[in-house]
Amino acid sequence: MSENAAVSRPGGAPKLPYRNRLSLSNRFLRLAWGFVYALLFRTTPKPLHGWRRFLLRLFGATVASTAHPYPRCRIFAPWNLIMGDYSCLADDVDCYSVAPIRLGAHATVSQHAHLCAATHDYEDPEFTLLPRPITIGDYAWVAAGAFIGPGVTVGEGAVAGARAVVTRDVAPRTVVAGNPARVVKHRRGAAEIEGPGR
Amino acid sequence: MSENAAVSRPGGAPKLPYRNRLSLSNRFLRLAWGFVYALLFRTTPKPLHGWRRFLLRLFGATVASTAHPYPRCRIFAPWNLIMGDYSCLADDVDCYSVAPIRLGAHATVSQHAHLCAATHDYEDPEFTLLPRPITIGDYAWVAAGAFIGPGVTVGEGAVAGARAVVTRDVAPRTVVAGNPARVVKHRRGAAEIEGPGR
Amino acid sequence: MSENAAVSRPGGAPKLPYRNRLSLSNRFLRLAWGFVYALLFRTTPKPLHGWRRFLLRLFGATVASTAHPYPRCRIFAPWNLIMGDYSCLADDVDCYSVAPIRLGAHATVSQHAHLCAATHDYEDPEFTLLPRPITIGDYAWVAAGAFIGPGVTVGEGAVAGARAVVTRDVAPRTVVAGNPARVVKHRRGAAEIEGPGR
Repeated sequence: MSENAAVSRPGGAPKLPYRNRLSLSNRFLRLAWGFVYALLFRTTPKPLHGWRRFLLRLFGATVASTAHPYPRCRIFAPWNLIMGDYSCLADDVDCYSVAPIRLGAHATVSQHAHLCAATHDYEDPEFTLLPRPITIGDYAWVAAGAFIGPGVTVGEGAVAGARAVVTRDVAPRTVVAGNPARVVKHRRGAAEIEGPGR
Repeated sequence: MSENAAVSRPGGAPKLPYRNRLSLSNRFLRLAWGFVYALLFRTTPKPLHGWRRFLLRLFGATVASTAHPYPRCRIFAPWNLIMGDYSCLADDVDCYSVAPIRLGAHATVSQHAHLCAATHDYEDPEFTLLPRPITIGDYAWVAAGAFIGPGVTVGEGAVAGARAVVTRDVAPRTVVAGNPARVVKHRRGAAEIEGPGR
Repeated sequence: MSENAAVSRPGGAPKLPYRNRLSLSNRFLRLAWGFVYALLFRTTPKPLHGWRRFLLRLFGATVASTAHPYPRCRIFAPWNLIMGDYSCLADDVDCYSVAPIRLGAHATVSQHAHLCAATHDYEDPEFTLLPRPITIGDYAWVAAGAFIGPGVTVGEGAVAGARAVVTRDVAPRTVVAGNPARVVKHRRGAAEIEGPGR
């Protein structure tokens, strides 16, 4: 048995380290977005949120007219981005939207946070890319430098503390911190956000 | 009770996700700094520390003539920055100086460290921005990728290890690591740094 | 004894916070690489891996013709970089190659990972820079935002999970995560990668 049996592909010599699941048209769109982003998005002064919302919508994003996409936030694929009312993507956020990323109303994603909506199946010899959507709930806060992993839902009003590394769902109104992230407290005012009915 | 009672503001529909405590003149200054930074600071070759010190001082920073601000370090508001003798802000450091950030003499801040001098009061419906000053003591070292949170003092000669996430004060000459950061050892040579008198 | 005894150097007032072990020719080369990188490497569209391989080789890197250096990966010193067949340095990777960094065949380094091949001796009054080589084994995966410290070897087929902070060697086919990183599981398929003989 060849040493590399587990990673070579049937039908000949491997040409790529893993099967690229992203289609050609997807790659062309991303190339076009890359140019538009570098020339027309990232270069804009902070207050011009309206212009950046326009560019994001041009490439298929669903962006509320009150959303704040800051100029240095990176967005892999705008067509997979949904920004709710008053939601915010701060500078130096990396929104790796291989799968859909949805920010609820008033959701805040602070500087250097990484929303990473894909992983690889490392048990698969093909090292297949696995897109997994991310949801940041209404009024949730992803603080500075936090990492939100593929498939994660951060519940309504929840907080991922600075540099928290979140690989599992976060329950509504809980506060998580650390690497790996653990629940450290609960957000007060839950009753007020949710109303007495729940 | 409305579901959103806790986050709407008195007097009508909210216009911003939270009250922006930064004044108009502050925002204008930051806009001007943004242009100067992008065109004249970040683009300079590494050895030109003198030119970058000049630009920082022009915008109100207090910078020792032996300090080393590297070209790719980001500074939110130079007027809140104090760099002591032989202090260093490496490339890709993010100095989020919403509140004052003070580097002591010989303080070293390595690549990708994040000095984050503000947080939000997430229990406040206004999500108020809370500036909190940061102090990095003389001879302290904030290693690569470490995070220093709002209000934190890193004591004289202390070390925040690579990627340490520091949200509480670090005692002089201690070495902290991890997320959250914990004391892992003490720096030898303390007597030599401090002198026998203490 | 002066308070600063531990940090002043024999023979007069200190001119630098620590002895710079990098020679003048090294600094000139890095300056030249800095320009080439900024103008000709970082600005290129993603698919042009061949062009970027050419530039890296021009500055002394050993790069397999199937390797993928993405445009926004940063490389401190190409002459200390070795990229094996089908290896990959993703966007926003920081390859701080003060000492040699070697990627094995099919090694993947994902976005925002930091390969940090140097530290400082913080017990030395000179704060001496200590270059320490890094090796990423064949088929290993350094996932998004992970930190690989100076002197670390990530074994063949091993995985450093997202944001793992790795300061010790990782055994082949183990999966580590957290800060500090700990073994969390073993990669299946080990027998297939290694063959039955081991």
